Amino acid sequence: MSSCCAPRCSRLAPEEDAPVKHFTDLAQFSREQVLELLALAQRLQEHPEPQALAGKILGLVFMNPSLRTLASFQAGMARLGGSSFVITPGQGTWQLETRDGVIMDGAAAEHVKEGIPVLASYCDALGIRMFADGKDLAADIADGRFAQMAALAGKPVINLESAVNHPCQALADWKTLEDLKVPRRARFVLSWAQHPRALPLAVPAATAHMAALRGMELTILRPEEFALPAPIMARVHAAAELSGGSVRESTDRAEALEGAQVLYAKEWGCTQPYGDATADAAARHRYPDWCVRPDWFARAAPECHLMHCLPVRRNVAISDAVLDGAHSVVLRQAHNRLSAQMAVLYSLLKG
Amino acid sequence: MSSCCAPRCSRLAPEEDAPVKHFTDLAQFSREQVLELLALAQRLQEHPEPQALAGKILGLVFMNPSLRTLASFQAGMARLGGSSFVITPGQGTWQLETRDGVIMDGAAAEHVKEGIPVLASYCDALGIRMFADGKDLAADIADGRFAQMAALAGKPVINLESAVNHPCQALADWKTLEDLKVPRRARFVLSWAQHPRALPLAVPAATAHMAALRGMELTILRPEEFALPAPIMARVHAAAELSGGSVRESTDRAEALEGAQVLYAKEWGCTQPYGDATADAAARHRYPDWCVRPDWFARAAPECHLMHCLPVRRNVAISDAVLDGAHSVVLRQAHNRLSAQMAVLYSLLKG
Amino acid sequence: MSSCCAPRCSRLAPEEDAPVKHFTDLAQFSREQVLELLALAQRLQEHPEPQALAGKILGLVFMNPSLRTLASFQAGMARLGGSSFVITPGQGTWQLETRDGVIMDGAAAEHVKEGIPVLASYCDALGIRMFADGKDLAADIADGRFAQMAALAGKPVINLESAVNHPCQALADWKTLEDLKVPRRARFVLSWAQHPRALPLAVPAATAHMAALRGMELTILRPEEFALPAPIMARVHAAAELSGGSVRESTDRAEALEGAQVLYAKEWGCTQPYGDATADAAARHRYPDWCVRPDWFARAAPECHLMHCLPVRRNVAISDAVLDGAHSVVLRQAHNRLSAQMAVLYSLLKG
Repeated sequence: MSSCCAPRCSRLAPEEDAPVKHFTDLAQFSREQVLELLALAQRLQEHPEPQALAGKILGLVFMNPSLRTLASFQAGMARLGGSSFVITPGQGTWQLETRDGVIMDGAAAEHVKEGIPVLASYCDALGIRMFADGKDLAADIADGRFAQMAALAGKPVINLESAVNHPCQALADWKTLEDLKVPRRARFVLSWAQHPRALPLAVPAATAHMAALRGMELTILRPEEFALPAPIMARVHAAAELSGGSVRESTDRAEALEGAQVLYAKEWGCTQPYGDATADAAARHRYPDWCVRPDWFARAAPECHLMHCLPVRRNVAISDAVLDGAHSVVLRQAHNRLSAQMAVLYSLLKG
Repeated sequence: MSSCCAPRCSRLAPEEDAPVKHFTDLAQFSREQVLELLALAQRLQEHPEPQALAGKILGLVFMNPSLRTLASFQAGMARLGGSSFVITPGQGTWQLETRDGVIMDGAAAEHVKEGIPVLASYCDALGIRMFADGKDLAADIADGRFAQMAALAGKPVINLESAVNHPCQALADWKTLEDLKVPRRARFVLSWAQHPRALPLAVPAATAHMAALRGMELTILRPEEFALPAPIMARVHAAAELSGGSVRESTDRAEALEGAQVLYAKEWGCTQPYGDATADAAARHRYPDWCVRPDWFARAAPECHLMHCLPVRRNVAISDAVLDGAHSVVLRQAHNRLSAQMAVLYSLLKG
Repeated sequence: MSSCCAPRCSRLAPEEDAPVKHFTDLAQFSREQVLELLALAQRLQEHPEPQALAGKILGLVFMNPSLRTLASFQAGMARLGGSSFVITPGQGTWQLETRDGVIMDGAAAEHVKEGIPVLASYCDALGIRMFADGKDLAADIADGRFAQMAALAGKPVINLESAVNHPCQALADWKTLEDLKVPRRARFVLSWAQHPRALPLAVPAATAHMAALRGMELTILRPEEFALPAPIMARVHAAAELSGGSVRESTDRAEALEGAQVLYAKEWGCTQPYGDATADAAARHRYPDWCVRPDWFARAAPECHLMHCLPVRRNVAISDAVLDGAHSVVLRQAHNRLSAQMAVLYSLLKG
């Protein structure tokens, strides 16, 4: 997965000599560097700098749908005095081919080898969203299509969610934990939740990594068929070691949620086997009660926060009562996308 | 219908203490307050204030298609120094669910209960377009889906056309009447016109209310099956009483158009019964000559203006000869969307 | 084709009294005027003027898909301090009718007779993309739908690619030739290339005209069935005469490419007959080897540049080896869209 971030050495502290090249993976940063970035987010929130990025342009390429990411990046650039443009292949723009060496006689009229460097040449930074294919686990874990596009840009690249990563969401979620003064060593439970069909591993992978890098006591609660793949877990363990956190996996909800201070619900697809729609449907059919309801909080800490990256299907993944209740901080998470990403943009683009 | 405007007490005069919270219904305002708002529109047109809304962001959510509204709001924000972003559920963004308590296992991936407050949290004001469902008259008249979304925003909301209202169009049309020096007591005829299928009641309802609130002698000309529903007519009568205008309904074109100084043509669906496509098709089949042609003006005042909110289907609702002739002021109406909405934006967002 | 440019007398030199009205056809300009415009492009590239178009708004109407044009015009306006909005009929906006006198009871809800002047009234200049219908050669050559829309705007219009023209591409390509110091009298070969189906004549027509107007030794290399139509060739010959260039056509690749300093590859549809999909498929089936491969450069000048307007289908029109090799300048061409169009915008809208 680290392949998606060519210059891993980059730092984000604005006063540094070597400017950031990309924001493609939270693993680019140490725990302390993330906290510096969040301090910048907080500063920009409290003391706006409406001319900081005057004249700067952000290009946004959405190979997949978006609501929060599109709106918050456009708003974030505008709040900093810059501007942005949006390209949505398949919606007003032709489809883009990503495969190497193919004879392009199908639906895609242009290859990313042309499309990405061209778009990058019109802007100062390029955001790219490129979801997983959901068929071949090794290919999705390698995150090769995103890495290829990022490498083609020749400009700072922002990961707007790739096959197995979503660093903007992770950064906003970390800010939410800071805002809520959730202790570093608190119990953080990432729980699988129901959905009508398989969803990608990007958010669970990024969330688990974020909690580990923050140094939390992370439990991943999921049925056995939905265990996160070994390479993703290896990354999570490495982050926990770096920051002094802990990681465990569980299928036992009652035990996992005991004393939890955060319950982060997320839907994802069956991994054993991966990419098999029939097996996925059969597996998720076995867990009809994995919709987060008020009784999930029975043994959690009283102030336990319910987190979710959104969009969420009400009464499938999380019940109305929970989403509309006192535990939920999902709107705060989404709102934090704005300031977290403004810090990223500022770090990448400010002179 | 007033349900769509929570703080009905709001005033728009910029020097007032209590700032406007929403612009969702022209019925928020007295005749005099509308004239103040139009004076502001005129002032901004003649004396641009290119930095008035510097740093401000308008979010635009289109649950239905748009041309004028999209372009004029983006241009209006830019003319005042601000910026905007556009979200179009179903086009690059997933569909949004509006029903309460539903198990979301269908096409919609996100509920407006999350989507709207999140988008509102990225901007300073939120415009929302949400057409009628066209099936249940009481539900459409209640305008509940728009009201729900507006209530969720927690920010100033602008109605970009809801089930039974289109206050931006009404404001621009009123400005057009002022520009053309149409007397307050002039005869204003709102006439039903042909269309291949049923269209919503938003514009006829808003137009009739606007003419009544302006104090005009309003005639609503339509076949019996297309009479505007009683709750809409009650609102129109209330506005006429407030402003000293008059309201009547007619099925007799010759009589209705006698001495008319304005003929406002608009297509809408059969209301008796409402929401029945077969009955609607049968009803409109009985009125093949309700396409506005030059002979409609035979007994009107010589300077009678032809108005329409656009888009219009040429030679179905209005003939080429009329649209291209001297009576038509439809382009002026559309152009006035820009200055009228700039006044709304200025009132909602300026300091 | 000159019908698409109403005020042919316009000049672009910014210091002139008579401001440019449109940028719809490179034939508006003499060779010297184009060079002045390119000098402006170079100046804006080297010495940015980030406030030159502050407060100005560009409207962009895309009747057909776009990637480069959309992104580079939005970026170009932003780089000059202005802003832009995008309307894409059929994507969030209804379809627009272009035919005269039609009874509009079909899919299109609005006529360009309303849509275009309305959109133009919200902005300072309007860009319009309107591809060929590809059925009736005379109609496409007349470029009547674009000309009609341009005439309706009442504001400066920019041709974003019409049925038989693409002046923004031609201007960027000319800039590329200057950047690369390709001599005026160099051999410029425009070659037909393969594609799964017929594409419009806009780029080959504009490219041939540009090379001729620059005074180059132009060869158009294509199978007989793909000869450019007589009215297009007449325009090319006229430009060559004006600038002292030469024009010839050939079906012999080896001979045509002898000593070539530029190979401009482009796909287009069968012209003999025109607009017949079956005949087109049969004709292109006869030329399987018209995919540009490294051996095409065997007898060209050593420094021969491979040009293409993009998008390009790899290994159909041009092979990977050529696109990724040293001859290719396609990314530079695309990047030059930005500065070339900034010069156009500056000339149309500054002061």
